[in-house]
Amino acid sequence: MAEEPHSFFSVARVEAYTDAVFAIAATLLVLDLTTNTIGEVASDAELWTALAAMLPNLLSFVISFLLLSRLWVIHFQQFRELERADGVLLWINNVRLLFIVLIPFTTSLAAEYPDYVAGRVALPVNFFVAALLGHATWTWASAKGGHLLKEEAKQDAYRSARAGLSAVICGAVAAIVSPWVGSWGFLAYVFNGPLGSLLQRRAARQRA
Amino acid sequence: MAEEPHSFFSVARVEAYTDAVFAIAATLLVLDLTTNTIGEVASDAELWTALAAMLPNLLSFVISFLLLSRLWVIHFQQFRELERADGVLLWINNVRLLFIVLIPFTTSLAAEYPDYVAGRVALPVNFFVAALLGHATWTWASAKGGHLLKEEAKQDAYRSARAGLSAVICGAVAAIVSPWVGSWGFLAYVFNGPLGSLLQRRAARQRA
Amino acid sequence: MAEEPHSFFSVARVEAYTDAVFAIAATLLVLDLTTNTIGEVASDAELWTALAAMLPNLLSFVISFLLLSRLWVIHFQQFRELERADGVLLWINNVRLLFIVLIPFTTSLAAEYPDYVAGRVALPVNFFVAALLGHATWTWASAKGGHLLKEEAKQDAYRSARAGLSAVICGAVAAIVSPWVGSWGFLAYVFNGPLGSLLQRRAARQRA
Amino acid sequence: MAEEPHSFFSVARVEAYTDAVFAIAATLLVLDLTTNTIGEVASDAELWTALAAMLPNLLSFVISFLLLSRLWVIHFQQFRELERADGVLLWINNVRLLFIVLIPFTTSLAAEYPDYVAGRVALPVNFFVAALLGHATWTWASAKGGHLLKEEAKQDAYRSARAGLSAVICGAVAAIVSPWVGSWGFLAYVFNGPLGSLLQRRAARQRA
Repeated sequence: MAEEPHSFFSVARVEAYTDAVFAIAATLLVLDLTTNTIGEVASDAELWTALAAMLPNLLSFVISFLLLSRLWVIHFQQFRELERADGVLLWINNVRLLFIVLIPFTTSLAAEYPDYVAGRVALPVNFFVAALLGHATWTWASAKGGHLLKEEAKQDAYRSARAGLSAVICGAVAAIVSPWVGSWGFLAYVFNGPLGSLLQRRAARQRA
Repeated sequence: MAEEPHSFFSVARVEAYTDAVFAIAATLLVLDLTTNTIGEVASDAELWTALAAMLPNLLSFVISFLLLSRLWVIHFQQFRELERADGVLLWINNVRLLFIVLIPFTTSLAAEYPDYVAGRVALPVNFFVAALLGHATWTWASAKGGHLLKEEAKQDAYRSARAGLSAVICGAVAAIVSPWVGSWGFLAYVFNGPLGSLLQRRAARQRA
Repeated sequence: MAEEPHSFFSVARVEAYTDAVFAIAATLLVLDLTTNTIGEVASDAELWTALAAMLPNLLSFVISFLLLSRLWVIHFQQFRELERADGVLLWINNVRLLFIVLIPFTTSLAAEYPDYVAGRVALPVNFFVAALLGHATWTWASAKGGHLLKEEAKQDAYRSARAGLSAVICGAVAAIVSPWVGSWGFLAYVFNGPLGSLLQRRAARQRA
Repeated sequence: MAEEPHSFFSVARVEAYTDAVFAIAATLLVLDLTTNTIGEVASDAELWTALAAMLPNLLSFVISFLLLSRLWVIHFQQFRELERADGVLLWINNVRLLFIVLIPFTTSLAAEYPDYVAGRVALPVNFFVAALLGHATWTWASAKGGHLLKEEAKQDAYRSARAGLSAVICGAVAAIVSPWVGSWGFLAYVFNGPLGSLLQRRAARQRA
């Protein structure tokens, strides 16, 4: 099947579908911030108090939105290197999107049950799996000598793989520590940049 | 009317609209997974129990998301073979999207009423009709000597028709057995691949 | 301002934004079909009864989805004739989209209050205003000798205007009779085709 | 990093993602207009009364939709001048979209708590921050001699900056007066046009 050009797909439509799914998942996050939870108030002070009580929800919203944005940027960076997609890549992408779509749910778990293990673990695990599937996308695309990559991307394939690996490692750390620290574990992503550089430099040295 | 070039449409915008509808239908599925059904919990164990009670909803979500993805892939495969659209194709597509948009509703029926016939039947019937309209799209596009197909797709038109027919047959089987087995009937799709190959080989033999 | 090329916009992005708004409005319609209204049931018969009670909602959903599809097709037909957009066209389009976004609300009014004038009038009036703004789009684009139209569309501009006018007239009839007949007034759209042909033939005769 | 072409992105996909986010935020606004708030009615007069009671919600919906449309038009105007994006621009855009996504929430605050400071302030402040991030987009794109701009846009960069500045000033005025006047402060945007022209003329004079 992989022999016929028929089994390849242009990436443009995969990108369009992916963009729409990300955009909707990001926007649905706001549905957790409803005025329902405020209810009746009788003074300015009461409204401010009610809004202050929503701060954990707002924080969850901001964290999830920024992490979703990060995952979207990773997708963007990957797909501009792709020449074409095949059926396997399409399905890795579909399952990846399944975990993107779950994020509004795991975000509300995180916002409402921060005192319980399941509430602290759900969101970091969700992001970890999404990052892992992002890595799988790249691994598949750059397999068989980069059979889905653009010509100019093939040289750099190992560097990009290291950058993706770094995101997976940070995601794993955030997930592992989450039963104790909850969403604070996302601070592990701070090390994403330096770790990525380190891995890439090591890979370059091994090659030389 | 079919005589004037004026009555043809470029497929790009049909694809863009379709992608957005699929993406939203897929994302709305997650609204069924709300923390509302969990409510107040007092311990880790209670939260895990509440989450375990949501497993049927989660399963419905995953099944519907993957079937929606499958229908999207079929749409993707079809439309890359199309040179242009006409008014009839546009309206087949619109009605097809109507049944895509219904899926979040039939999914929640399936998740909440698995003990009743209507709950077991709704989702498989919905997918069957969507698959049928997918087949109708292809039948219309390849009619009149493939009047809406790209030049290079005309040769293979009969093969693609057989592949689509196979999806319709699996969908019909899943719908027919659903009163007794519910969503397990979707396992009929496992036979989609082999059945499609069989139908295509038979068609090739008849031609030769 | 109209003198500088700077004040013109490419239509591609207007189309992309419009497609997304239509797709979301069409998909939100399904939120009115929720299992909440069914609640607890104890037998197959009860579930069928509960579903039968939702038939008016389902009918409203289907009517609104098809009318939205129709308005999207009209938009599609118009914009493929446009060479470029200007600020005025952009804002006519934005207000047009405002009335598209309102449709899920007026649809639920129609579904839940069919016994009252406001419930019967809301949806037809909404569609009428949307059709009117569609006509305004075309009127503006074809003004000043078709300053926003593609070269090949300028000849046919008067015919397309008549086709649009016919949709506005049907919409007006549906809105005017709606206090008495409700959504049945949409049957006025059945005359859209013949009326459009008639108006176009008359226009052609006057020109000759 | 800015040295390698690798660190630049095409703007097309940023636009596609942005369009989808704007479209969804605009469409979610309608969810505030639900028939839930109407409930049971027993006569035409009661339904009209219930609908009249929704007028403030409808007004909020219209204001937010039009301001969102305005912000979208500004985004459209900016991005057609861009040759490419870089990582910084991508993240300014992502944060900008975060404030777009918040608008359905701040709109419902404005609609439901017009009698309290927080209710009057939320929406104008939200729009002000979104306008500010719009200005930041342009400031970054036109920095370093317009390193992200199209060739033909570089000459006019200072004029466009003034136009953006005018929107920020109007947004600031609307936010500052909002504790006393609420959403009426948006009338400050009426001065957007003349103020923009004034600032542009002054900049042109200083240059000459």
